[in-house]
Amino acid sequence: MPKIVETVPNFSEGRDQEKIKRIIASFINHPDIKVVNVEPDQDYNRTVVTLLGESEKMIDALVDFVGVAINEIDLNHHEGQHPRMGAVDVIPFIPISEVSMKDCIADAEKLGSVLNKKYDIPVFLYAEAARNEERVSLPNIRKGEFEGMKTKITMPEWHPDFGEPRMHPTFGAVAVGARPFLIAYNIDLVTKDEEIPKAIAKAIRKSNGGFQYIQAGPAYLDQRGHVQVTMNILDYKKNPIYRIFETVKMEAKRYHVEVSGAEIIGMIPKDALVRSLQYYYDVMKIDTEPKELDLDGIVKAAEYHLQLRDFSTLKIIESHLGNDL
Amino acid sequence: MPKIVETVPNFSEGRDQEKIKRIIASFINHPDIKVVNVEPDQDYNRTVVTLLGESEKMIDALVDFVGVAINEIDLNHHEGQHPRMGAVDVIPFIPISEVSMKDCIADAEKLGSVLNKKYDIPVFLYAEAARNEERVSLPNIRKGEFEGMKTKITMPEWHPDFGEPRMHPTFGAVAVGARPFLIAYNIDLVTKDEEIPKAIAKAIRKSNGGFQYIQAGPAYLDQRGHVQVTMNILDYKKNPIYRIFETVKMEAKRYHVEVSGAEIIGMIPKDALVRSLQYYYDVMKIDTEPKELDLDGIVKAAEYHLQLRDFSTLKIIESHLGNDL
Repeated sequence: MPKIVETVPNFSEGRDQEKIKRIIASFINHPDIKVVNVEPDQDYNRTVVTLLGESEKMIDALVDFVGVAINEIDLNHHEGQHPRMGAVDVIPFIPISEVSMKDCIADAEKLGSVLNKKYDIPVFLYAEAARNEERVSLPNIRKGEFEGMKTKITMPEWHPDFGEPRMHPTFGAVAVGARPFLIAYNIDLVTKDEEIPKAIAKAIRKSNGGFQYIQAGPAYLDQRGHVQVTMNILDYKKNPIYRIFETVKMEAKRYHVEVSGAEIIGMIPKDALVRSLQYYYDVMKIDTEPKELDLDGIVKAAEYHLQLRDFSTLKIIESHLGNDL
Repeated sequence: MPKIVETVPNFSEGRDQEKIKRIIASFINHPDIKVVNVEPDQDYNRTVVTLLGESEKMIDALVDFVGVAINEIDLNHHEGQHPRMGAVDVIPFIPISEVSMKDCIADAEKLGSVLNKKYDIPVFLYAEAARNEERVSLPNIRKGEFEGMKTKITMPEWHPDFGEPRMHPTFGAVAVGARPFLIAYNIDLVTKDEEIPKAIAKAIRKSNGGFQYIQAGPAYLDQRGHVQVTMNILDYKKNPIYRIFETVKMEAKRYHVEVSGAEIIGMIPKDALVRSLQYYYDVMKIDTEPKELDLDGIVKAAEYHLQLRDFSTLKIIESHLGNDL
């Protein structure tokens, strides 16, 4: 398996489609980097890009990408609902395959150093790459945003990790960091009563004593007309999907509410599906092994056993990594 | 409801039945303190006493009890398998009813101060009552035991919290503290394969990413000829028994192993049973409320729904608290 990282750069333009295209076009010169998803948001006036590739090549591609964004975006003329401090606001590195968190921290440091040297923009290291407690939380760093940070950055405790203590006049500042892969996972409940997913979320989430790697809450889906338990799984090896799914079904029983399905938002590693399918194969004494299935087979099995809806091979990370896996 | 604490003093005599009787007899003068359980262990040469009562009266009773133990036990002539540093080795305060952890810490401090003043014995505050990180763990304080602590206690970092930095010549030293109520709970699996409860324990315990208030491991019951998942529930409100029981049953399915029953070791609050029975009443749409049941009714319901074996009203704390509850 090749060494693969995911990065999810967020940049501060979500309305001007031509500008967005020109910024994304910077990746055309980097054919080994897969642009998996580009998601502009008009209200936020912000675009989230999902990239996959090898560390070295990823850093080169991101340096070019930031170079284009500097020329395209002037934060003095930017407004939107999402907090931001930079034209490129944040770039997290996420270990995917044969890469450790330590590698991703090293990548974040390397990219931060190069961005500062090449473009004279201040860089903050955040999340797992943070150099002190205050900088673990991105919102904590970003507080004050582009406008307020012109003063904030001059305070000794808010000097950037790379660069002089002043904002770039049009770009602002960027946060570069490393964090674990998250699975965004939602379970559908056939009711409109939000109290039920709220109670179930409390039963399973870490903050109320539940599973260590689960963040969860209730959500109401207006268009579909039912509620969900919506969650992030921060470590699918320790808190596998099947265990969360079965626990939610068990809790739902006391409310006599049907669990009609579930969905993955964004991407999921093949390994996360294989591990959870193995549970159902064990229970049902199915003789083959889910890890032997191809991606189409995994999708079918996940639709059946984990009741995933709106699912396809495109949501499995490995489908974007080519045949050399 | 009256303000009730539990204390569990451990003293260093487990063989001489007459001596044990004389020490326990100190509680005869304190009729408001319930002696719930007295459990001598010959190998340990140590006796564990479980008491229930109001804080003020509990402190008076414990002061008398320590006074008798000082006269009865000389640690210079004590040997046994359990580590110990004092004739009375440890006294934890545990909140039971209408009492907070803060109250129990205050009780521990008060008892410690009185014991030192009255008998000139050094007192260490431990667990929630500890005044620094090093003293949270009782084994950490007790390391060196009666013999080694004669030197250890003279070191500035191991001066006692109450008293001069020297051991009492025959009594030694005592640890007084506060800790939450634990439910010791074991689930029976019909197999001799210890790998199965080991894997299930990992799925549910905090240390491997499971429920926050569960400590769990595997055990083999020689006489009964099957294994168990053995655990402590540190907070039954956040990690209720039914949720653990149902999760263990769900995990056991993949091994095709029957869950034949479960047991409570020591005591359990009525509230812990009522909360878990409510789940099954909800699922089965039973119209009455478990909190309306008397203790006999709760025992019957717990035997049925939670599959508790060897259970009786005597294991429910409230059965020892009299009719004034």
